[in-house]
Amino acid sequence: MVGSLLASAVSDPKCAVPDMVAYDEAQAILAAYMQNIPLLTTEFVSISQASGRVLAEDIRAVMPRPEADISAMDGYAFRCADMEKAGSVGLPLAGQIAAGDASPSLEKGVACSILTGARIPAGADCVVAQERTSITDGHVHLLEQNVRNGLNIRRSGEEFCKGDMLLEHGLKLDWRHLSILAHQGKEQVSVYKHPKVCVVANGAEFGATATDCRTELNTQLLAAMLQSEGVRVTRYVCGSDSMEALHKLLHQCAQEADILITTGGISVGQTDHVLHVLCQMGAKCLFRRVKMRPGKPMTVMQLGQKMVFCLPGNPGAAAICAQLFIIPFLRGFAGEKQEKKTSMPIEGQSSFAYVAAADTTSFLPVYSTENKGKNLITLVRSVGASDILCLTQATGLVRVSAGTSLQVGDMCQMIPFTA
Amino acid sequence: MVGSLLASAVSDPKCAVPDMVAYDEAQAILAAYMQNIPLLTTEFVSISQASGRVLAEDIRAVMPRPEADISAMDGYAFRCADMEKAGSVGLPLAGQIAAGDASPSLEKGVACSILTGARIPAGADCVVAQERTSITDGHVHLLEQNVRNGLNIRRSGEEFCKGDMLLEHGLKLDWRHLSILAHQGKEQVSVYKHPKVCVVANGAEFGATATDCRTELNTQLLAAMLQSEGVRVTRYVCGSDSMEALHKLLHQCAQEADILITTGGISVGQTDHVLHVLCQMGAKCLFRRVKMRPGKPMTVMQLGQKMVFCLPGNPGAAAICAQLFIIPFLRGFAGEKQEKKTSMPIEGQSSFAYVAAADTTSFLPVYSTENKGKNLITLVRSVGASDILCLTQATGLVRVSAGTSLQVGDMCQMIPFTA
Repeated sequence: MVGSLLASAVSDPKCAVPDMVAYDEAQAILAAYMQNIPLLTTEFVSISQASGRVLAEDIRAVMPRPEADISAMDGYAFRCADMEKAGSVGLPLAGQIAAGDASPSLEKGVACSILTGARIPAGADCVVAQERTSITDGHVHLLEQNVRNGLNIRRSGEEFCKGDMLLEHGLKLDWRHLSILAHQGKEQVSVYKHPKVCVVANGAEFGATATDCRTELNTQLLAAMLQSEGVRVTRYVCGSDSMEALHKLLHQCAQEADILITTGGISVGQTDHVLHVLCQMGAKCLFRRVKMRPGKPMTVMQLGQKMVFCLPGNPGAAAICAQLFIIPFLRGFAGEKQEKKTSMPIEGQSSFAYVAAADTTSFLPVYSTENKGKNLITLVRSVGASDILCLTQATGLVRVSAGTSLQVGDMCQMIPFTA
Repeated sequence: MVGSLLASAVSDPKCAVPDMVAYDEAQAILAAYMQNIPLLTTEFVSISQASGRVLAEDIRAVMPRPEADISAMDGYAFRCADMEKAGSVGLPLAGQIAAGDASPSLEKGVACSILTGARIPAGADCVVAQERTSITDGHVHLLEQNVRNGLNIRRSGEEFCKGDMLLEHGLKLDWRHLSILAHQGKEQVSVYKHPKVCVVANGAEFGATATDCRTELNTQLLAAMLQSEGVRVTRYVCGSDSMEALHKLLHQCAQEADILITTGGISVGQTDHVLHVLCQMGAKCLFRRVKMRPGKPMTVMQLGQKMVFCLPGNPGAAAICAQLFIIPFLRGFAGEKQEKKTSMPIEGQSSFAYVAAADTTSFLPVYSTENKGKNLITLVRSVGASDILCLTQATGLVRVSAGTSLQVGDMCQMIPFTA
């Protein structure tokens, strides 16, 4: 039938399709959903394998740091009162202590040489740095008189005490945390398992038999994006218009993955089967289409306990939707708490003007440059939702909310891309 | 001999030791050195393995994007002039084209249905979106009259043309670039090899026979930091005071690694053999001690063509020196150009005051929080160069240059930690 290529997703009676939502509403729906899903299960890994993983236990100090009173300097340890009493005669040198040595008691009226990190001998109450002393006839003399009790002594527990909370459950571990775990004698640590995601690209143009065959780009792009987040990704391409083939593939993915991602096949064309097939499989629609640009077709379904993110087929739009919706969701799903982050928004002055449509929130590819301590946010030319070159020239996105505008010189925030 | 634990590095006649340098001078010495060292060699990897690697070739477009004129919409393609002539009668529907289909010529006086991404049939000069049309008796009618030549047609090459420079040599590849490589039909790409680094911790307190045996933390911390930069790291601990053992170990490391890192053993104690041993091996000193806090003992040696970074033994100081000196060096060494970066400094308002000593540049652990579009930079309490807990509470460093001060409310820049 002529014109039959164009259908409407709402024509499927199986699928209750909610109205298009505003961008913030879509994010709120996802956030609310996040509250109720079970987190991933956990596993133990050796701490040398733990960087990049999300901690699934609280780490409280089982031993303090420093573990004992130790010297902060290479120098001489003695009793302040002894040195005061000795005056210009100085204190006779008796013994030496290096880090790793056992620490004997210090006899009265003597000094001992001590290296950084070595235990303070019982009886000593200060350390004077080598360069502030002179040695004559086996006696230590002070070049300056300002010694005091506790000088250059790192007290046991001054960094943290036994029982202190060191690392909290939900923390994404990196080099900063591994030395803490090593110090606490942890050989293994409990972390959340890596989530498993299947990415399914959909489009007859990717089929080997298509006359105008295209190279499929989305699964490559999304796999790299998610893998650098610690996600195990399997890529699939459904290069046919067959609903049966798509059904079979999505059913298999639902078996093997924690989360499904589809690209393409969610528009109004007759070959856009993704939502129909998911509805047939029993999925519910959380939202269908978002008032945003790019990314208007963005749809999220729930298939049993599993989330299905249905991304637009245009790779530029798919990438931006994945950055805005999927990455934050996956981080939460993987147990990560999102408090102090190193990837903060970057604030800067806009070098461009932009007016968002009344009902559409725009996300613009930008990069940030620094000049005299000020960040300048510059727009990258884009030809639209399909543009992938603009993403390579950008380092993040600026949001211009529906019905608002950005003027040259306005302060704005760049949401940095993930690596 | 009493007091013999304390010696001076300058006492070794083999080692010409330059004076302590200012922080910026140390960085300038390293940067100048970088100009003259050979980059790593290259290898080919499949593009699915290329994320995180540094591109060693320029990628110019061998095919444009889009490759042909294609539809940006699901809708109807026709000639504007035909539709104008037809007026309220509309144009009869004749045929349909989906993405992947061959594209026949469009007969005069008709319209065809077309899906997003499909090739524009020869003869058609515009596409009208489905929702702006109605279909009656097999004819397409416009709901609005604003059609024009080129409407909703993505022209061949509008994103980029054949011959355009797409990705330049020296770029660190991530998800943003892989779709470009895939589009260009690249299956393999030339990248720089991963650098190989040996990290050697030095200290008798790490030896199994030490009375006051300590857990060695630096190699764990540095290995995780460098591995997340794509570096292959081997960890070694020299847990003895034997110069022979240290010599043997450093000699072995110089054979296997591109770059050496040592921690500890560079102070004035008699057990601090690292610089002596490196001098014996023929290393030259690029700089010895830096006017910075923490990290004053920081020293860089050159052993043949290989760089040796000698870090302080205190793990807090070692980590900060590695962030400031080693990470930027390694990125350059690994071929990466440092232009547009996602990890820009984060500008914000200081919530604390700090006065740097007249001759010492301070690096303070801080974190950044956002409130009403403004970043606030907050100081993390630290007990000094040994502190590792403060790093877990910080997300970066603020520099306060020698002889300057920071006031509450001043704008400052946080250098974010690497992940």
